[in-house]
Amino acid sequence: MSSTDTVTGLERMANLLRIHSIESTQESNSGHPTSCASMAEIISVLFFNVMHYDPKDPRNPAADRFVLSKGHCAPILYAAWAEAGAFPVADLKNLRKIDSDLEGHPTPRLNFIDVATGSLGQGLGFSCGMAYAGKYFDKSDYRVYCVLGDGETSEGSVWESFAFASFYKLDNLCAIIDVNRLGQSDPAPLQHHMETYQKRVDAFGWHAIVVNGQDVNELLAAFKEASETKDKPTCILAKTFKGAGFKGIENELDWHGKPLGDKAPEILATLKKLVNEETFVRPQIPKIVAKVSEIKKDKEIKLSSPPNYDGKKEIATRLAHGTALEKLGKACEYVIGLDGDTKNSTYSIKFRDAFPKRFVECYIAEQNMVQVAIGIATRQRYISFVHTFAAFLLRAADQIRMGAISFTRVKYIGSHAGVSIGEDGPSQMALEDFAFFRTVPHIVCFYPSDAVSAERAVELAANYDGAVYIRTSRPNFPILYKNDEVFQIGKAKIIVESSADVCTIVAGGVTLHEAVKASEKLKGLGKAVRIIDAFTVKPIDRDTILKSVNATHGRLLIVEDHYLEGGLGEAVMAALADQTDIKIAHLAVQEVARSGKPAELLSKYGIDAEHIANAVEKLL
Amino acid sequence: MSSTDTVTGLERMANLLRIHSIESTQESNSGHPTSCASMAEIISVLFFNVMHYDPKDPRNPAADRFVLSKGHCAPILYAAWAEAGAFPVADLKNLRKIDSDLEGHPTPRLNFIDVATGSLGQGLGFSCGMAYAGKYFDKSDYRVYCVLGDGETSEGSVWESFAFASFYKLDNLCAIIDVNRLGQSDPAPLQHHMETYQKRVDAFGWHAIVVNGQDVNELLAAFKEASETKDKPTCILAKTFKGAGFKGIENELDWHGKPLGDKAPEILATLKKLVNEETFVRPQIPKIVAKVSEIKKDKEIKLSSPPNYDGKKEIATRLAHGTALEKLGKACEYVIGLDGDTKNSTYSIKFRDAFPKRFVECYIAEQNMVQVAIGIATRQRYISFVHTFAAFLLRAADQIRMGAISFTRVKYIGSHAGVSIGEDGPSQMALEDFAFFRTVPHIVCFYPSDAVSAERAVELAANYDGAVYIRTSRPNFPILYKNDEVFQIGKAKIIVESSADVCTIVAGGVTLHEAVKASEKLKGLGKAVRIIDAFTVKPIDRDTILKSVNATHGRLLIVEDHYLEGGLGEAVMAALADQTDIKIAHLAVQEVARSGKPAELLSKYGIDAEHIANAVEKLL
Repeated sequence: MSSTDTVTGLERMANLLRIHSIESTQESNSGHPTSCASMAEIISVLFFNVMHYDPKDPRNPAADRFVLSKGHCAPILYAAWAEAGAFPVADLKNLRKIDSDLEGHPTPRLNFIDVATGSLGQGLGFSCGMAYAGKYFDKSDYRVYCVLGDGETSEGSVWESFAFASFYKLDNLCAIIDVNRLGQSDPAPLQHHMETYQKRVDAFGWHAIVVNGQDVNELLAAFKEASETKDKPTCILAKTFKGAGFKGIENELDWHGKPLGDKAPEILATLKKLVNEETFVRPQIPKIVAKVSEIKKDKEIKLSSPPNYDGKKEIATRLAHGTALEKLGKACEYVIGLDGDTKNSTYSIKFRDAFPKRFVECYIAEQNMVQVAIGIATRQRYISFVHTFAAFLLRAADQIRMGAISFTRVKYIGSHAGVSIGEDGPSQMALEDFAFFRTVPHIVCFYPSDAVSAERAVELAANYDGAVYIRTSRPNFPILYKNDEVFQIGKAKIIVESSADVCTIVAGGVTLHEAVKASEKLKGLGKAVRIIDAFTVKPIDRDTILKSVNATHGRLLIVEDHYLEGGLGEAVMAALADQTDIKIAHLAVQEVARSGKPAELLSKYGIDAEHIANAVEKLL
Repeated sequence: MSSTDTVTGLERMANLLRIHSIESTQESNSGHPTSCASMAEIISVLFFNVMHYDPKDPRNPAADRFVLSKGHCAPILYAAWAEAGAFPVADLKNLRKIDSDLEGHPTPRLNFIDVATGSLGQGLGFSCGMAYAGKYFDKSDYRVYCVLGDGETSEGSVWESFAFASFYKLDNLCAIIDVNRLGQSDPAPLQHHMETYQKRVDAFGWHAIVVNGQDVNELLAAFKEASETKDKPTCILAKTFKGAGFKGIENELDWHGKPLGDKAPEILATLKKLVNEETFVRPQIPKIVAKVSEIKKDKEIKLSSPPNYDGKKEIATRLAHGTALEKLGKACEYVIGLDGDTKNSTYSIKFRDAFPKRFVECYIAEQNMVQVAIGIATRQRYISFVHTFAAFLLRAADQIRMGAISFTRVKYIGSHAGVSIGEDGPSQMALEDFAFFRTVPHIVCFYPSDAVSAERAVELAANYDGAVYIRTSRPNFPILYKNDEVFQIGKAKIIVESSADVCTIVAGGVTLHEAVKASEKLKGLGKAVRIIDAFTVKPIDRDTILKSVNATHGRLLIVEDHYLEGGLGEAVMAALADQTDIKIAHLAVQEVARSGKPAELLSKYGIDAEHIANAVEKLL
């Protein structure tokens, strides 16, 4: 095929994709055809000339990756995959229907989507994770492409990703910004100031190329230049027009997120003439050329050696986590550690020191860190364990939310939870982490209370087929369990019991140890209590708790180093909501905490042994 | 005083501040003296030469503002305020003690702190809000200074703020980056590459000045240049050394967050010689010169006109919110609106169109938007209403968390909550918003279910002395209340009742209307139910609900368009936890939703009228 034929073919394909974008959004009577139109040439060139992939095997590990960061342009992405042969073109009319996987924004329910997008500014970080894995773990030649909108470059997460990609010299990554000038409700702040975009991208260490994004020739040249650029990622800054090719709509405000309505027929007629379907021979898709080695994981990943504590020394669960992660790393070469410059506090440093090539220092940029973790975990090759203070994981709350829509299997590890961290004060204390993480569908939330259970939580996390949150603690705790104790997801442990128990206490972490102290005090007063270590806050072990409460006169006290809302307390209450005859008391932090010694803070906020003992007496 | 004397005085002050930083962290046996040391000259010059303020009246509205974004350097900030005369220097030894407001990281419990810091990358955004208010609302000459660490420039939120400040030409804003090279666990990614910092800051539209941050002369010149720079903000890039002036520690890794221990005496002796306390005359603090007009708010802010609906047309609560905000704007000139390029969806556009000068378009940068809103709301002058889709407010979850520690009064408005938004799909649906917002201490969470109550929620929000979250909905709802209905925080409304009711249903938003439909169906079957509109999810109206449940045979059904965890359901369960004899059922979304028509989604996820009716029958 001559180069003229190539260009003409890609131009016709671009217009065909425009047609599909209009028709599918007309059918669904919602969607973003004008945002699709500006990027039609970009998608045409990428999917029908640049990218190496197999539409019949979209998750082939050696294929180039594509991430549509501007997820609202799903219609043109679906159109490209349909035209490529991934599914029948006729299915495009099912856009946004409840029984179709062609959702309003892309999700991995579709086998050609790796990550859900639609919350802006996240795609580039996912792409960084894929590119990092490609270059440093897979050591393969596949490339990663990510199309962003101009509006979403206002998101700071995008600049975290720009900084990350250049720092790690991800020359297998190519971002394309579709600078179509117009946002949802106003022009984007930089409008068509391409030189400002170029300066910013260049300053962040990328190779920047400005092109006319509606010109196939310029795009082809830019992608070639990108593939030849070494040691830095490339960003193609494509000057485009929203609604490009749509007469009367192109470059006009107030056409965001609207089907073309009665303007559609005339525009479609024009576009169809340009495509001339009868004579149109689709361009060939480049075949996969990269090689990727097969992943050979054991069916079950086991700690390389069991917990080994003599029970005399107190150990922090954050330290036990680090120990366990190092053991996991020995057992499985696909375990990856990430941290945001807190590795000497979260103890992910133990993993880093043992396996420096499988550790990614993400610096103080939690949003990008979580995005990278999600990107690394795509196509089920690697298992990402991502670390920072639990409070700062919240910085990536929206990324974790979107991770759920991606059905990611990332393991989130948050340290320094609760007022028990002490003097650093409230800004460093996670007191809402469970409230947030519990909302993630199908997640497992671990709250280990000693070193043995912490190690087993890490092992269970690695094997769980979904997202996991592990809350670790700063203070040292006594060892509660034997080294060979067996733990299961959703199975609590009764750690104190007798036949005379008058009340059940459910607790976790520091409050579990306070409960034990309280039980000793109460025992002296002739009042025996049963104490349950929840172990997992989600799922919560309803059976064990209910049985115990029924055996202790329907009395239940829940104590937690967390705000009153959404944590262990409400998890237990919800599990028992259908029960009558249970009286529940709940101790938790109820106000903004202060700096102080851990014991002082536990007392001040009413969750220490003394308050527990008093609460039990009140329940009796 | 000669300029030599000035410089010497400031150098001596810098070392005196180093001494205080060492001594106070020795006393608390925790803290970050080395991170204080690198910025000692910056703080000395700012507090004793550059800034105009009154240490005896730290919240004087005409004073220059100072924000310590690197909040872990609280010890040197406290030292500066003490030396300035805000409180006795002897109190510095109470650092991090539980009965002292000199917490590990600064909070507004101290009258010289406007905003809590300690979660990195947030201070510049708060400062942007203060500078925006100074330039555009107060129209005053006070200036805003913000010191950042180099490590935190990895946070994307910082770049959102850089972009915002230049876009709005905040030439009254001066940022200083303390480039001390070393992070917590490793060198910061850019180390001492000052030219890279300069390129980035310049590309983001700021005037960048590189200085030796340990050189008082260079700092003085840079601050002068900053004050003379028009139409753009200035960023002073100060090359410094962590632990500067601490022999054997300066520029060494592994000294983050550690008191100097047994190295302190020798270092203190050296510094004390440099200060020579006996001969040291403290530099004079520049007096306040700016003028600011007094704020004259009515004791109670009322909607300029009451709700005015004929009850025939269905209205979305997001639209009613926009209507009410416009009315509030008429009633009170201190009401400010902010949005992140969603104003035509959240309907904050109604306020923007009426009061363009009191509206801040923040573009797609929710973290900075929330920070700006918090900054604008400091010193109790303006009332910020900040808008975006509820799902995207989560992007600023950590900012909202820190806002709570700042005791901010910001009003957060999240639209497009729940699966009822329909075809756009799960990325746009907030299903965890209440779980997160409920954790904010003392917040009020409104969930209006019709236009009348939505308008009153906005009015109540404006008058509430604390943070507020209002969840608005996308679909149109029937009008439930008369235009003169009176609403109160923490007071639910019974909207359907009879003496024969066999079950209570608590709901909000779309599910309240589904409950009404279900009640009609059940009525046909001879089963009357009582229906409660919660109105506020926090505080929840325990009394009304309990009374109602007791009157309906202890049967309670809660239905919500939210995930199962942490929302209305668990709020009600927690309120009734101490009760026995109540049987609770709960309908909520339990998995990642799909795209589809709202009615289809409500059915698929089990929260429509049919599922409600079935759940009631099951409870009977």
